Amino acid sequence: MLFNEKFDKHMAAAGHGLEAYETAVAYRGRGPLAAQQLGASAALVRTVGGADFRLPHTGNSARAGIPAAAVTAEDADLIADLSKQGRVVMHLVLTPQTLPDEVSYNVIADLRGREHPEQIVIASGHLDSWDLGTGAIDDAAGVAVAMQAANLCEQLGLQPSRTLRVIAWMNEENGSRGSTAYMADYKDSLPNHVAAIESDLGANHPLGFVGFWDPGALPVLKEIAATLAPIGANLVEATGESGADIDPMADAGVPVFSPMQDSRFYFNYHHSAADTLDKIDPRELAENAAVMAVLSYALADMRQPLPRTPPSLK
Amino acid sequence: MLFNEKFDKHMAAAGHGLEAYETAVAYRGRGPLAAQQLGASAALVRTVGGADFRLPHTGNSARAGIPAAAVTAEDADLIADLSKQGRVVMHLVLTPQTLPDEVSYNVIADLRGREHPEQIVIASGHLDSWDLGTGAIDDAAGVAVAMQAANLCEQLGLQPSRTLRVIAWMNEENGSRGSTAYMADYKDSLPNHVAAIESDLGANHPLGFVGFWDPGALPVLKEIAATLAPIGANLVEATGESGADIDPMADAGVPVFSPMQDSRFYFNYHHSAADTLDKIDPRELAENAAVMAVLSYALADMRQPLPRTPPSLK
Repeated sequence: MLFNEKFDKHMAAAGHGLEAYETAVAYRGRGPLAAQQLGASAALVRTVGGADFRLPHTGNSARAGIPAAAVTAEDADLIADLSKQGRVVMHLVLTPQTLPDEVSYNVIADLRGREHPEQIVIASGHLDSWDLGTGAIDDAAGVAVAMQAANLCEQLGLQPSRTLRVIAWMNEENGSRGSTAYMADYKDSLPNHVAAIESDLGANHPLGFVGFWDPGALPVLKEIAATLAPIGANLVEATGESGADIDPMADAGVPVFSPMQDSRFYFNYHHSAADTLDKIDPRELAENAAVMAVLSYALADMRQPLPRTPPSLK
Repeated sequence: MLFNEKFDKHMAAAGHGLEAYETAVAYRGRGPLAAQQLGASAALVRTVGGADFRLPHTGNSARAGIPAAAVTAEDADLIADLSKQGRVVMHLVLTPQTLPDEVSYNVIADLRGREHPEQIVIASGHLDSWDLGTGAIDDAAGVAVAMQAANLCEQLGLQPSRTLRVIAWMNEENGSRGSTAYMADYKDSLPNHVAAIESDLGANHPLGFVGFWDPGALPVLKEIAATLAPIGANLVEATGESGADIDPMADAGVPVFSPMQDSRFYFNYHHSAADTLDKIDPRELAENAAVMAVLSYALADMRQPLPRTPPSLK
């Protein structure tokens, strides 16, 4: 999940893990730049994340003209303790490189709609990840459940009325340029985008779904969510937040959604070396796929599409 | 805590954490040598420990003539998965060095006995630690509670009948040479060592104490433990296990003891980069100091010392 300014505007309701991250990540996102403006020669940011296993945490940060890095929570404590005892001198050896841009791609697959193939419902996750771990929870899990939504439709012989578009977004973590390119490429057909879903908060047990939509949509969304009651995923909350890649569509009036995941443990692992496949529980991954499949199929097959989100709500 | 052969003989009753470690650590301790004997050119051992934060775990291992290292649990899983798919080629860059021996010391302090200063009760932990973390739980905590036992006696104006000897053992992790030197230096006065206590399983909540002693000692040990009931530390179990540094004394008939700690989380951190001071809860550390202080003072001040442990029990 990428830090962006919208975190300041939107309530984070998908669990206190996300709320805590929202508060803490501002220091990673803006800290080095603020430190530079105050005359610092370098900036070290205490790791954003919940675990106490001495793991540094990476992530997007506003580019500052000074060296900047993350230190583990334990080492931040140590530095703070030493600072109370006197002057602390640190020798930093940082080895980041900015390599030339390479061409990369969003990966897009359509399950073509039966009656209105020109109308699109997006089910998505993002393909890129930070390089410390393997990106299993951020965000291979999101890509997997988006693919599984279309796969389940095919397995069940269900072809929805509208087109179900599976997207694995490129470059979410480092500027959302995949999303930006999509918005430019498809700007003329945005009115035909009737809904967009992104999963970008791991694969822990889903409690329902969140998003940003016209309040008039709530009754039908609750009907859809009721289908997910058997797995305990029938909550619906208009949190105003969805996913970094589909947020621009919300600005264009597209109703946007995200599974509401139990995020208590997500930030113990995300953007760290410990984001690996063993962190994915197959049953909970399947529950997330169910949320993605039920929601995307319903949105793609309901008689009338949801109302557009009026600009006045933003 | 050092792996040693006695783990195979003794029951580990201070919590399932220790039991699990006992089972797993054999692979670290003997794995590389066994691999070499089977013709391996190198050995990688899956990390011993309970946490899933991609931390490699270090510790004592029988010296093999082949390169050997620990890999994290996550990477061990990955290697196992890849192995099922075909031949896996690995390039190992290992940088261990065996430096020349340096002189180092046990640190010993006596609170001299009031009536029988020649009779000794040892309260101890070990001073050395593995170098990934700072050794807060293994075993600065043990040294701290041993020092605090004598400190509390002084604060309370209590001078026990026998000498309370605080020892911070050197070189527990890498061969117990501090303990071996002590046994050689004090072999003539071992009959005057009436009891020995070592704390080497962290500083989580103590449930009482364990050790190895003549069964006839149990009634008086239960009386002592009853004093610790207000902090929930009144269990007494003859597990046959104490601490690596005082085990040799048990062979010489000295009753040996260790706090019985809640070890559920200890092996998530021990011998890893995450063994740092924040893992110590001050209240639980104080509880361990209470166990060490009450037990050592009682053993040093009771009218008759405990019976010697007969060799037939070993």
